Amino acid sequence: MNSNNYCIIMAGGLGSRIWPVSQRDYPKQFLDILGTGETLLQSTVRRYAMVCPIKNIFVVTGESMAARVHEQVPALDPKQILIEPYRRNTAPCVAYAAAAIRTINPNATVVVTPSDHAVFNDERFAASLRQAFEVCERQDWIVTMGVPPTMPNTKYGYIQYSEELAMPGAPDVHSVVAFTEKPSVEMAAKFIATGEFLWNAGIFVWRMPVLERAFRQYLPDVAATFLDVEYTDDFNYWERVYSMCQSISVDYGIMEKADNAHVLKASFGWSDVETWDSLYDTAEHDANGNVVLGGDAMLYNSSNCVVSIPQDTDKTVVLEGLDGYIVAASKDVFMVCRRQSENMVFRFAADMDIRR
Amino acid sequence: MNSNNYCIIMAGGLGSRIWPVSQRDYPKQFLDILGTGETLLQSTVRRYAMVCPIKNIFVVTGESMAARVHEQVPALDPKQILIEPYRRNTAPCVAYAAAAIRTINPNATVVVTPSDHAVFNDERFAASLRQAFEVCERQDWIVTMGVPPTMPNTKYGYIQYSEELAMPGAPDVHSVVAFTEKPSVEMAAKFIATGEFLWNAGIFVWRMPVLERAFRQYLPDVAATFLDVEYTDDFNYWERVYSMCQSISVDYGIMEKADNAHVLKASFGWSDVETWDSLYDTAEHDANGNVVLGGDAMLYNSSNCVVSIPQDTDKTVVLEGLDGYIVAASKDVFMVCRRQSENMVFRFAADMDIRR
Repeated sequence: MNSNNYCIIMAGGLGSRIWPVSQRDYPKQFLDILGTGETLLQSTVRRYAMVCPIKNIFVVTGESMAARVHEQVPALDPKQILIEPYRRNTAPCVAYAAAAIRTINPNATVVVTPSDHAVFNDERFAASLRQAFEVCERQDWIVTMGVPPTMPNTKYGYIQYSEELAMPGAPDVHSVVAFTEKPSVEMAAKFIATGEFLWNAGIFVWRMPVLERAFRQYLPDVAATFLDVEYTDDFNYWERVYSMCQSISVDYGIMEKADNAHVLKASFGWSDVETWDSLYDTAEHDANGNVVLGGDAMLYNSSNCVVSIPQDTDKTVVLEGLDGYIVAASKDVFMVCRRQSENMVFRFAADMDIRR
Repeated sequence: MNSNNYCIIMAGGLGSRIWPVSQRDYPKQFLDILGTGETLLQSTVRRYAMVCPIKNIFVVTGESMAARVHEQVPALDPKQILIEPYRRNTAPCVAYAAAAIRTINPNATVVVTPSDHAVFNDERFAASLRQAFEVCERQDWIVTMGVPPTMPNTKYGYIQYSEELAMPGAPDVHSVVAFTEKPSVEMAAKFIATGEFLWNAGIFVWRMPVLERAFRQYLPDVAATFLDVEYTDDFNYWERVYSMCQSISVDYGIMEKADNAHVLKASFGWSDVETWDSLYDTAEHDANGNVVLGGDAMLYNSSNCVVSIPQDTDKTVVLEGLDGYIVAASKDVFMVCRRQSENMVFRFAADMDIRR
């Protein structure tokens, strides 16, 4: 394992659509949504620890969630849990963690990743990630992971790439032509038909100097206060910096403008776990088209359902005669909802709040 | 309230079809199936206490369930909880309790009732029961309660009755022409069409001398060992008697043969709670044809469902897009099943047993 490999895990997000299993006070990275016995954060750490030494892995999160990170990942030294004073999207987050890492190793190669995605094939993932690290060791590139799309998902970002290999004889790395955010379903279908587009998995790799240069070139205000100062662990400083800092994503602030953006084509069973639909699409189906995640469920005469039951649920779930439903349990909700109606989760959540 | 009114509540049964809310080790009389905040046994006692003094109410059950009776109905003196050594169906059960009551009041008028049925209109029930008691005070009759059928239920017993009033100017009491057990759906439909049939609610009223005479005439073996001996509370005696006693129901052993059987036509929202279907039929429906019993359930775009959630469930149930399903939670099961498939509960229960 290369001791130069570092990892920044962004774990500051606050809940998502995949209600009821993820709710505002318990964001999904801290939940075992897939019923594997690990939370998404835990599986993320474990996955990256296949390629980065555990002491090189840093988790960035908010004050209110730091204790949970510590609880769920006791292998991390407290110094490896970085607390952001405020949420300012991903660019400040990355700069913050990079500044800390740079004090340890100014020539680190760093992968930046979300903490709440699902990867169903760890081995393939690790192999692709190693390739990305190797490419970045040799090139002054930003390498992002691009997943061949399997359906016209309108919630993902897409990466249009140049067909030729960027490094002949090297892995499947291509230069990026463009980044596109959430397309309409017709556009998404066109993207897929051309074969020139990949899903943006939100993971990117760069050497520290390349990272610094990118921030200075495209986000100079962030570079000025985060990177071009002597590092301090005085939280008051960071609190001041964050309070005045703009909220901006790495995708929009850097990647879409960078002239050295590349993409590694990689297929490892990826889902951002943001919608039941994308989860249904990515996970393994049984012979009746059902996806069953987690705990005890008995299905009869049922098909095309996605069933998510936490492993520690005290009840066995018995389902009969359901075609195309989401059945999901969480700490305080048991939901049965047609897959076509999953947008209603916002309504359910709001109605539950009113009832409290 | 008439101090001559006594009540025998039969609470020895062991679970039923209405899985998963009732299971072998926790029969439904001890459960709050309707989500009213009372178990079926508790509501039964409360209902009969509107007509019989509480000290005149006796509950017969098995050894393993006596503690639960005591727990759930602390108003009963331990002497009012009669323990049967074995289960021998209802006739020995009734004789056993009658023998005990007879030592207190040899001229008691006694109502015999199951403990696990639902009655949705207590006031109407109490009014009908008082009428039955009044009739039995004046006549040497056995009066049973007959409910006008609302659907061709194939699981109930039916009572064919003679149209003329048995006591002119008196309540709706008629002589019984015949008792019929569970008919086919075509027969049930015919029964209803004639207007001459009532559901047998399993409740009957008789004065003690009438009871004794009926046992002597139709079940002489039972009379010999239960009633025509000096009463003893030596449990060894009863253990011996029960071990050799035949298993026989009051319906089959006495009612179907008796020449003094009468029926009081009474409508009080009755269900034997043995099937989801009969429960659906009896309970109140919302505007979309849903029956919602018990705890917290939020229904969207759903119709014709029966939802049974215990009041102490820790989860809110959210349902969307379901038409014609049973949704039922118990201590260790959460079930979603089409109403048309409710017979599968046997299969579910068996499969769960195998998995344990």
